[in-house]
Amino acid sequence: MTKQKYKVAIIGASGFTGSELARLLSQHPNIEISHITSESHAGKAFSELHPQFLGMIDQKLESAAVIEEAELDVLFLALPHGVSMDFVKKWHHKGSKIIDLSGDFRLSSPEVYQEWYNKEHVFTEGFEKASYGQPELFAEKIKQSNLVANPGCYPTASILSLAPLFAENMIQNHSVVIDAKSGLTGAGVKASENTHFSNVNENFKAYGVGEHRHTIEIEEQFSCLSDGEVRVQFTPHLLPVDRGILATSYAKTKKLTTQEELTKLYEDFYQDKPFVRVKTSPPSIKDVRGSHYCDIFPFWDKRTERVIAIAAIDNLLKGAASQAVHNMNLMLGIEETAGLNQIPLRP
Amino acid sequence: MTKQKYKVAIIGASGFTGSELARLLSQHPNIEISHITSESHAGKAFSELHPQFLGMIDQKLESAAVIEEAELDVLFLALPHGVSMDFVKKWHHKGSKIIDLSGDFRLSSPEVYQEWYNKEHVFTEGFEKASYGQPELFAEKIKQSNLVANPGCYPTASILSLAPLFAENMIQNHSVVIDAKSGLTGAGVKASENTHFSNVNENFKAYGVGEHRHTIEIEEQFSCLSDGEVRVQFTPHLLPVDRGILATSYAKTKKLTTQEELTKLYEDFYQDKPFVRVKTSPPSIKDVRGSHYCDIFPFWDKRTERVIAIAAIDNLLKGAASQAVHNMNLMLGIEETAGLNQIPLRP
Amino acid sequence: MTKQKYKVAIIGASGFTGSELARLLSQHPNIEISHITSESHAGKAFSELHPQFLGMIDQKLESAAVIEEAELDVLFLALPHGVSMDFVKKWHHKGSKIIDLSGDFRLSSPEVYQEWYNKEHVFTEGFEKASYGQPELFAEKIKQSNLVANPGCYPTASILSLAPLFAENMIQNHSVVIDAKSGLTGAGVKASENTHFSNVNENFKAYGVGEHRHTIEIEEQFSCLSDGEVRVQFTPHLLPVDRGILATSYAKTKKLTTQEELTKLYEDFYQDKPFVRVKTSPPSIKDVRGSHYCDIFPFWDKRTERVIAIAAIDNLLKGAASQAVHNMNLMLGIEETAGLNQIPLRP
Amino acid sequence: MTKQKYKVAIIGASGFTGSELARLLSQHPNIEISHITSESHAGKAFSELHPQFLGMIDQKLESAAVIEEAELDVLFLALPHGVSMDFVKKWHHKGSKIIDLSGDFRLSSPEVYQEWYNKEHVFTEGFEKASYGQPELFAEKIKQSNLVANPGCYPTASILSLAPLFAENMIQNHSVVIDAKSGLTGAGVKASENTHFSNVNENFKAYGVGEHRHTIEIEEQFSCLSDGEVRVQFTPHLLPVDRGILATSYAKTKKLTTQEELTKLYEDFYQDKPFVRVKTSPPSIKDVRGSHYCDIFPFWDKRTERVIAIAAIDNLLKGAASQAVHNMNLMLGIEETAGLNQIPLRP
Repeated sequence: MTKQKYKVAIIGASGFTGSELARLLSQHPNIEISHITSESHAGKAFSELHPQFLGMIDQKLESAAVIEEAELDVLFLALPHGVSMDFVKKWHHKGSKIIDLSGDFRLSSPEVYQEWYNKEHVFTEGFEKASYGQPELFAEKIKQSNLVANPGCYPTASILSLAPLFAENMIQNHSVVIDAKSGLTGAGVKASENTHFSNVNENFKAYGVGEHRHTIEIEEQFSCLSDGEVRVQFTPHLLPVDRGILATSYAKTKKLTTQEELTKLYEDFYQDKPFVRVKTSPPSIKDVRGSHYCDIFPFWDKRTERVIAIAAIDNLLKGAASQAVHNMNLMLGIEETAGLNQIPLRP
Repeated sequence: MTKQKYKVAIIGASGFTGSELARLLSQHPNIEISHITSESHAGKAFSELHPQFLGMIDQKLESAAVIEEAELDVLFLALPHGVSMDFVKKWHHKGSKIIDLSGDFRLSSPEVYQEWYNKEHVFTEGFEKASYGQPELFAEKIKQSNLVANPGCYPTASILSLAPLFAENMIQNHSVVIDAKSGLTGAGVKASENTHFSNVNENFKAYGVGEHRHTIEIEEQFSCLSDGEVRVQFTPHLLPVDRGILATSYAKTKKLTTQEELTKLYEDFYQDKPFVRVKTSPPSIKDVRGSHYCDIFPFWDKRTERVIAIAAIDNLLKGAASQAVHNMNLMLGIEETAGLNQIPLRP
Repeated sequence: MTKQKYKVAIIGASGFTGSELARLLSQHPNIEISHITSESHAGKAFSELHPQFLGMIDQKLESAAVIEEAELDVLFLALPHGVSMDFVKKWHHKGSKIIDLSGDFRLSSPEVYQEWYNKEHVFTEGFEKASYGQPELFAEKIKQSNLVANPGCYPTASILSLAPLFAENMIQNHSVVIDAKSGLTGAGVKASENTHFSNVNENFKAYGVGEHRHTIEIEEQFSCLSDGEVRVQFTPHLLPVDRGILATSYAKTKKLTTQEELTKLYEDFYQDKPFVRVKTSPPSIKDVRGSHYCDIFPFWDKRTERVIAIAAIDNLLKGAASQAVHNMNLMLGIEETAGLNQIPLRP
Repeated sequence: MTKQKYKVAIIGASGFTGSELARLLSQHPNIEISHITSESHAGKAFSELHPQFLGMIDQKLESAAVIEEAELDVLFLALPHGVSMDFVKKWHHKGSKIIDLSGDFRLSSPEVYQEWYNKEHVFTEGFEKASYGQPELFAEKIKQSNLVANPGCYPTASILSLAPLFAENMIQNHSVVIDAKSGLTGAGVKASENTHFSNVNENFKAYGVGEHRHTIEIEEQFSCLSDGEVRVQFTPHLLPVDRGILATSYAKTKKLTTQEELTKLYEDFYQDKPFVRVKTSPPSIKDVRGSHYCDIFPFWDKRTERVIAIAAIDNLLKGAASQAVHNMNLMLGIEETAGLNQIPLRP
């Protein structure tokens, strides 16, 4: 097997997404990790920052400056919102494909970005270039792209939960309520009152009610899929677990359906999508933990004449790192499933 | 202090509700626990079954047969659905006030009961006699009652979350979606696959989608409060915590409102209710744990023109045992708050 | 009941110990909380800092400066090590009894303090004045004291686990191994890498191996109880729970014993101590959670000729706040158990 | 890659060990899983029993009777103690290599087995044939064996923690105290009071004090490694986590040492062992979760003149399933690390 490996770099290694990218890419059959960068930890071994990797990924962390001179096939930007765009601006001419895991290029325009992120965008041309990296919906566009905006964690679960219905134009546009729940890693690696164990453990609450940024990301994608503007009620909650998102999505349909029709619609829509599993009972976040799967249960409540579609993903994987790898596979033209065969870790 | 104490019995002591009732009643200034019964553990000390009570409640568990001859002021039935009605039938003539913590007398009629509980009712006269024991809504009726049906845990949080709006007839009757999440103790003390640690810990899922029995209980109470029949979309989920229910309730209103009006409506409605706290930010289950409080945050989303009202309770207390004590206080004509001053245990 | 209430102040309200003191003291029959102080949050309501208290303790936080002019019966210092001694120095002349919950006056001398705390002591006279506040061992001295050093959380569980044997001079002085495990609240309220949910949840590890400050506190107390210098192997571990300490203590005895003799020794030693429960099976931290109890199981392993004594406490209560209240009761000459009748919260 | 794959069967698929074996073996480059058996679930798909495997391992569960006629290279027995020996007796002549994950062949003789397992052994010849499958210690013997007794989870962590010292005869034989803590999956998949979420969550306790069966397994292996009989004080505790064992081992040495010497001794001993990581700070169970690693921190406490050696493993992997795969690799003569490159899943 003298297969040539693609060279990639992970920009920003201190967070959860960076470490999960390293875990996946280090075991990907077609990939070699050339650089992992961290400004605050440059010089340390990656495994010093993330001790679970000791003996597996001990390479040194470098400053992002090394990327300037490097010849790389793919750059993964695992950086905060508002920081990522600087690097895309600087590196988009380099000839490397860029997968941006921040929110900087997920929305439709600089104006919408500014409204929801309260920040001026420094690289407005990027919006034209960027594809929205939901592989189950936009694989053909992603294959042609050099810049992919990796979807948010909540949007991934939310969009996949109702996409088959929106694609068939079956949903009443203003009826959608998405009640979503995420594990704590969604709040990031930074120590704060919000991530203190005693505020999370044995606790549960909603946050960002009526104003979370993922709302607009979900709405724009649903609007793309269907005709007309979609407005979504999206409420995130914080679960006392490390990983996992469960989105419980409610919608009124334009016409009545049956459980059989609904199930068939979902099965048909996802039949060639290797990482979506349509289920006949409510999914659990632990059944997808550590994997790239999205489990979905579509339910027709004939009593209330509503669809309830429940989707479960691992927020750090299907909601971030493994989705980025999936996008990379598409962009490089290699097998879609390469490096993504992790079986969920349960219990 | 030679105050005469009321004599009570707890029927069914092996479950969580029974042990929480014992905890509250043993420290209630006006109450003496005369009997605690358990058929399967009769003869054992209560503290042998529940070791946390060692040195505090060591009295012997007895067979329910002892109740026949006893003169008691109040009987608490902490029994499963379908079992409780037998005891109500047998004891309703005894002159003791009865507080039934099961679902056997919560609904409007034997027919509705049979439809949702799949069981024939053996004491249909009870439906006439029973009051629905939501102290914040029906205190006057409860004071007159000799049989109170203590509300379900989900219904308590759900009903209190939207009661001010239904009471003002402000809600579009078919618009209500209640996405509710409960700690594991709601599933009871029995060991099963569902209560196995490895199936609950680090996990989260919906259950009973479209068919949970608490749906009809919520609908009937909302219908009572407002005019016309209310249909509710109710979805329960299982949280990996011991205690707590959070109900996130969504509703379309009949006319638009503002945050100020909404907050004022809730504050006015609950102003004389000592155990409801109207909040200006989303409530946490840990802020009510171990207490009789219900914390509610009413939010007006002007973008979507929906109310989101989020309520948090301790499912074993406000959702069961302390609500029963509250009902007892009303039925006995003693101070409403007696024995219910527990400060939430956090962290 | 026109009973005069004692006036107390809690100095330092932002931490877990401060909030637990407020919870206990606000419901103590003989106590009125005159002041709660916090330099960083002065002016806020106490319930703004700790929302679980909303409607129960809404008084304003004040600067510690108010204490100067106040006439108070008892001052509780819930401050960090190294800060507390400044206030003791400043206030010890005031006539208020002082209960210091820090480590500043727990050791035998300024020299030992400096060796283990790496800090010069500013009030060395305090060591003479201070009593070590373990009510089960030193009640008579505590009753006479105006300054009590409230024991550390680990020392409380560790000392009580073996005190009956040391008091009888039955232990080989260098044989003691104490393997202790604490819930996360022991690490304090401050957000840090160590208290980040994702580093604690589903995790477990030892820390401070061979050098934790509580080692010397335990050794000095055992040396007091017995004859000769005791050296203890003490290893703390971090449990993924909020509350609770379990100390598993191993010791070789000077002569062989039997289970019967051992049990009797413990029962006799603790027979008049209302908050120690000698058990015949291993204790659980959840059986003492939210209470002032210490549950102890002494076991004689005849195969290895060792005693294993396992003690469980709630680190925030018996290991801090309720122990301070117990000390206060002794110092004020009121009933030893006043305000300490909380039944453990389980589940 | 037309490499011939070895055919294996997993006997007993309903438990955690069976499902982890399936996870590892299904992705092992040299292995094909020919059969998975379960008497109680025969006929169901494996992924019906373990939904996380949906789409990955959907093969049908069969009765163990199919093994009789099958030609298989390796049989994995994931059965309870006392059941496994029946199958070893029946199948040891078949020519398949057998790896038994129960305790039936781990001890030195039928007499010792009967004393600690309270059960007569039905296949006493097995004790001669069986090798103790600790790959780091007995690789050469394992390579020659047709029957391997896979070590217990606690013994794996305990033995590896002190093996370097016992192998050098440096430990005082009666000084060893092992205080061990395990995640709940060690208690098995069966629903019981012990595995009920509310008894495990936010709780911690010791069990089997002075009498756990793993004690003798540890003692026998230490006796093998050193000269003379070793007696160990072993105390297991139950952690409120799914996976992980941490063993904190204490020992007096025959002569004094230094931290440098101690570290070097461990590094030398484990230098060719790819799955033991010698660390310079206390290990965490989350840093090995989902992997075959054993992390060990040896510490010399010069104050007490004791070694403290702390070892962390994933009880289901290094303590069961991946250790069995490691043994298989040795028995089949394939690369020792094949199929065992999982990076720990953290967070």
